[in-house]
Amino acid sequence: MDDEKTFDEIIEEVIQLLDDKKYKQTRDVLLEYNPADIADILTEVLDEASLDEAIIAFRMLPKDISVDVFSFLSIDDQVAIINGITDREINYIVSELDFDDKIDVLDELPANVVDKILEKTPKNERSQINTFLNYPDNCAGTLMTPEYISLQIGWTVDDALKHIKKAGMDTETIYTCYVKESGRKLFGIVSLRSLVVNDGDTPVSALVVTDFVSVNVYDDQEEVYDKFRKYGLLAIPVVDKEDRLVGIITMDDILDVGEEETTEDIERMSGIIDSGTSEYLDTSVWKQVKNRLPWLLGLMCSYIITGGIIAGFENALSACISLVTYMPMLMGTGGNSGSQSATLIIRGLAVGDVALKDWARVLWKEIRVSFIIGICLSAFNFVRIYCVEGHMSPEAMPIAITVCVAMILIVIGAKCIGSMLPLLAKRIGIDPALMASPMISSLTDLVSVLTYFMLAVAILKV
Amino acid sequence: MDDEKTFDEIIEEVIQLLDDKKYKQTRDVLLEYNPADIADILTEVLDEASLDEAIIAFRMLPKDISVDVFSFLSIDDQVAIINGITDREINYIVSELDFDDKIDVLDELPANVVDKILEKTPKNERSQINTFLNYPDNCAGTLMTPEYISLQIGWTVDDALKHIKKAGMDTETIYTCYVKESGRKLFGIVSLRSLVVNDGDTPVSALVVTDFVSVNVYDDQEEVYDKFRKYGLLAIPVVDKEDRLVGIITMDDILDVGEEETTEDIERMSGIIDSGTSEYLDTSVWKQVKNRLPWLLGLMCSYIITGGIIAGFENALSACISLVTYMPMLMGTGGNSGSQSATLIIRGLAVGDVALKDWARVLWKEIRVSFIIGICLSAFNFVRIYCVEGHMSPEAMPIAITVCVAMILIVIGAKCIGSMLPLLAKRIGIDPALMASPMISSLTDLVSVLTYFMLAVAILKV
Repeated sequence: MDDEKTFDEIIEEVIQLLDDKKYKQTRDVLLEYNPADIADILTEVLDEASLDEAIIAFRMLPKDISVDVFSFLSIDDQVAIINGITDREINYIVSELDFDDKIDVLDELPANVVDKILEKTPKNERSQINTFLNYPDNCAGTLMTPEYISLQIGWTVDDALKHIKKAGMDTETIYTCYVKESGRKLFGIVSLRSLVVNDGDTPVSALVVTDFVSVNVYDDQEEVYDKFRKYGLLAIPVVDKEDRLVGIITMDDILDVGEEETTEDIERMSGIIDSGTSEYLDTSVWKQVKNRLPWLLGLMCSYIITGGIIAGFENALSACISLVTYMPMLMGTGGNSGSQSATLIIRGLAVGDVALKDWARVLWKEIRVSFIIGICLSAFNFVRIYCVEGHMSPEAMPIAITVCVAMILIVIGAKCIGSMLPLLAKRIGIDPALMASPMISSLTDLVSVLTYFMLAVAILKV
Repeated sequence: MDDEKTFDEIIEEVIQLLDDKKYKQTRDVLLEYNPADIADILTEVLDEASLDEAIIAFRMLPKDISVDVFSFLSIDDQVAIINGITDREINYIVSELDFDDKIDVLDELPANVVDKILEKTPKNERSQINTFLNYPDNCAGTLMTPEYISLQIGWTVDDALKHIKKAGMDTETIYTCYVKESGRKLFGIVSLRSLVVNDGDTPVSALVVTDFVSVNVYDDQEEVYDKFRKYGLLAIPVVDKEDRLVGIITMDDILDVGEEETTEDIERMSGIIDSGTSEYLDTSVWKQVKNRLPWLLGLMCSYIITGGIIAGFENALSACISLVTYMPMLMGTGGNSGSQSATLIIRGLAVGDVALKDWARVLWKEIRVSFIIGICLSAFNFVRIYCVEGHMSPEAMPIAITVCVAMILIVIGAKCIGSMLPLLAKRIGIDPALMASPMISSLTDLVSVLTYFMLAVAILKV
């Protein structure tokens, strides 16, 4: 895509050609790009023109390229395309897909289409597909492929390379090979690198690494991602409860998981119920309402309490109505301070920089940080309220003092709440990401109002 | 680390052994684990016991393992260890590190230590190191390694494999090889897979892929990460302005970039200035204040305007003081609604689901979503304010209507602001992540207060 044409111009050209029914030319334009880019172009055609045109363009691609392009499409687009092509084309594409991609597609198709595809699948593969389709969502089992290279411990490097040469075409990766012992238990792994750099008569047993990292088939995908990152792996073996090798997960399948998990975290941190893998523009209005309303409604209830607190101070407010003008600032700053702390701790927990046992260190750091920040913000406000707005009149002094003391206490309180709540959530087994901005600011608003009005009553004697 | 012992128990055991000066046993315990795990253990020893003990433990490791362990340590810990070991040990470790890890360490060491190390480095490597040290932070140049496999176009598969066997030990990856044409221009890439599965007399020219993806040496690391993810690559070639191959970036170096960029985004979304790569517990109180205070101070200023608006409505407030009780709810819900939309759009922009040109579709969707949400929240409030709190008295009606109409308008306004501001930021070249929760809620607070009081004046005639 390092062409002089921009991506938008290419889309425009392709859609124009399709509209003009110049199919041969469409095909030639598409074939200038690599499969990942063609998939991008088709996605845009599907969004901006019509599904029918996207399907026509897709069907015109050479068979082998169409499979690659298909594997780069989003799962929703894959299903849309499957519904628009002939059974024969479906069978070809599905049979040529890598095993893990195949499972992903089958998982989303209606049962009758799946049945039709499975009918034409060899029996042993069919039962394997059924096993894979039954793994719960987001576990290692749904990411793995059973197509890996097995080596025999008694082989030499030459034997191994000969085997890889034969079996290599149909497996997802050949860069890591696996050696099993009796009962399908995983004994060790051999990298293709070690095979290639060693002499042909070296025994495989001399190259096998038995100190390997593996995951269980029911492990959450986030754990799998963390292991890839920590150990810098290209592939990871997946074992069942009896330590038997059932499949492998390769690097390319895990990068998307990283993005998904990040999106989930970020959405939770903003009070949005997980949108799953669906894209913003593709989710319906009702689904969006369903993802957002519960949190807004729940958080609104906390404001009933905040409102109640204010109602309790109505006398004080009537006596000094200008107290209200500083309320948004104190509440807003409290919320922002708390969110900053919560974010740092949530992120620290997620990447492993902060652990539960560090809570006292975290609290002590937050208290010092918030004290300094509180003093700075108060100094700014004192100048503003007493000197600038109050013209240094003696009446302005008590209000200035109330606001400034409240500011310091609110910032300290907010940062303590913001930093401790994610740790508490982790302690009791809730996702810390839920304790971010909306939750924290609702809570700190409550604390801010209470602190401010209690101080006002004490200092202003209203 | 699938041991029966928990990680904490291992740390405790190692620290106890070090305290008792049982160094031989410490070493034996450590050597039960693989380098990534040993690095984790040393990090904990460094945090919980002392730097000296961590250095002792590190120095006791066999030389070849110590290099691996070193490469898994964080850059701060690497520098701490370098400062505690002898020059000879430094030279050994630095010379054995992969080129890109070497650059990372040298970049952080004081100039005099770097000079001492470079003195003992062969001249051609020295000038290469100096070039690499001069690349700006976070660009492709700082991630790449110049150690890759070059193949000649005239070779056969057998020639290529023979070359890889010789050169393979010292290069970071052998799974992707590179073919250059005259003038060091990159001509194409050959995967080790294609070499291994083809016959020995196949010419390399038949296997070379010329339709490859590359990055420029000055490209931002986020772009590099996106290309890895999009194309599912194991390594990517890095070229200079003249399309000459200057190095390659491998997968393991890019996973950390993904995490770094996510942390940067999430922090920006909460009004925190980038903390860079430093961990929460390792940054000083002053640094934390410096990262957080500017945003809090800036946002506080927007509340001066909000306060001013309230001051303008003081008469209305004195006439109906109970208006204040609903203020936090309206402001809070407005802020939360806006943040939800902002988060979805920021994330959509980051992963490529949403583009600038989609702004009208986004706006239309947000208007519909917010209208429905606004109606739901208002219905809830109407029942609460008029029926429950107001006992259905006729006096409660106007306030209930004011709050409910304000709620609908505020939610719609907040969601429009929240969704459009990130797109606007992108349009004018600012990071959309800066337009998240704190920024949005400060703005929506202002709009909420204004809407609410204007409605109150109109409906309640105060």
